[in-house]
Amino acid sequence: MLSWIDGQSAELLSVKDRGLAYGDGLFATLGVRHGVPQLLERQLARLALGCRRLALPCEQSLLRNELLAFAAQMGGGVLKLIITRGDGQRGYAAPQPCQVRRILQAAPRPSYPAVNAAHGVQLFPCLTRLAEQPLLAGIKHLNRLEQVLARAEWQSDMYAEGLMCDATGRVVEAVYSNLFVVQAGQLLTPALTRCGVAGVMRAELLAQAMQLGITVLEQDLSYAQLLAADEVFVCNSLYGVWPVCGLAGHDWPVGPLTRKLQAIADDLLGC
Amino acid sequence: MLSWIDGQSAELLSVKDRGLAYGDGLFATLGVRHGVPQLLERQLARLALGCRRLALPCEQSLLRNELLAFAAQMGGGVLKLIITRGDGQRGYAAPQPCQVRRILQAAPRPSYPAVNAAHGVQLFPCLTRLAEQPLLAGIKHLNRLEQVLARAEWQSDMYAEGLMCDATGRVVEAVYSNLFVVQAGQLLTPALTRCGVAGVMRAELLAQAMQLGITVLEQDLSYAQLLAADEVFVCNSLYGVWPVCGLAGHDWPVGPLTRKLQAIADDLLGC
Repeated sequence: MLSWIDGQSAELLSVKDRGLAYGDGLFATLGVRHGVPQLLERQLARLALGCRRLALPCEQSLLRNELLAFAAQMGGGVLKLIITRGDGQRGYAAPQPCQVRRILQAAPRPSYPAVNAAHGVQLFPCLTRLAEQPLLAGIKHLNRLEQVLARAEWQSDMYAEGLMCDATGRVVEAVYSNLFVVQAGQLLTPALTRCGVAGVMRAELLAQAMQLGITVLEQDLSYAQLLAADEVFVCNSLYGVWPVCGLAGHDWPVGPLTRKLQAIADDLLGC
Repeated sequence: MLSWIDGQSAELLSVKDRGLAYGDGLFATLGVRHGVPQLLERQLARLALGCRRLALPCEQSLLRNELLAFAAQMGGGVLKLIITRGDGQRGYAAPQPCQVRRILQAAPRPSYPAVNAAHGVQLFPCLTRLAEQPLLAGIKHLNRLEQVLARAEWQSDMYAEGLMCDATGRVVEAVYSNLFVVQAGQLLTPALTRCGVAGVMRAELLAQAMQLGITVLEQDLSYAQLLAADEVFVCNSLYGVWPVCGLAGHDWPVGPLTRKLQAIADDLLGC
């Protein structure tokens, strides 16, 4: 598969890279259709936020041009971008100045079961809790052991996704998706100020819902509120929106706002 | 510098490695003298614990043999071992079966200022807090952004180390060291059940102090208790023990138990 490091075709990386050593970097996953990366501006905005948080000096225009050129070569599939602080010597102190490294990898588009979008998914209730770290909340950094542990909790194909809560039991997100609930016509998604990844599809749906005049809330969501919701769905930038139809013996119907936002997501992704 | 991947001389790694993608792995830093890795059995014991926690199937005897062979080639310096879950496809789910990867790198021994061991060090009071994640506490995994952020808080050579607390303000450790206090003749070090790395020198000093009949406590340590301590010191497996003489305007004398344990550490490390 196509793979670039710093703009050059390469599949091998220095063992001194700080992405490997400490997870010192960020990543992003972009759908690519007809040679074009999807939701590119939102992806770049989130990367810029991540770079600011981690003090990674990465030029946006360089990144944009590289993503566009790589996607053009790919044609279609999934583009994974990793940005790291580059090579380091031993020790946590970052080299000054550091040479930020860009790693781009192409992969085939995953083939999700059609039933996920059509009838909804079951969530596995993960026991792995998300630790609260406001300095890293929201950004898509490379420290992802919590997601690895959570994803290892289930093997059955019955579950398309897993629900993750924080240490105090608040609902935060799914393992590789964001989560929304609809309650009394209002759209609510967990605030991601303590933990969680603020996905680009989440940002897009929040913006579009507001434009539609829907009341949109980013706030804490308890497990009881989740169970009491009228509609529940998950989203990400590859599959769009999946209704959630079940979790630990609780069922939800697939509701009209979920379908409306699913259609918007499909439209954005050209499905 | 000498570098092996899976027993073969190599300095380049697949960009598909899950250590890079998610920090899905462990590391260890071993001093090497006269071709022998220091505190090897304790290092292996901690690696075994880490492998169990992350469900990494890594054979201890293979690891031991490789560390011994690599150290023999090095002669002296610092040996860094990284264990990852090997290559993965896109997504958090681990490949079944996975092929654990071993990466060994040699580096020169850092030249610490002699004054650190002789007169003690100043700690920088880091604002970065350690998030509480019991599933990952104690082990030396590759998700180290908190340490990267903490280490970036100071540039002045005045500080040899930085103090790290958890979100509720409990004292946990230093950025690349463990921390001990002496209070009324008792030796106390923070319990590392919520966060922190349980270093091999920490384990060694706890064992040795118990053998000397010293009362040893692993428990929560408040900032107020730290300030009220008779003696404070930090330790790791490379430099041994450094007395802590200052933190944010507070001073401690270098006490007799610190000196006793420093001598034990020096003896272990052959200093």
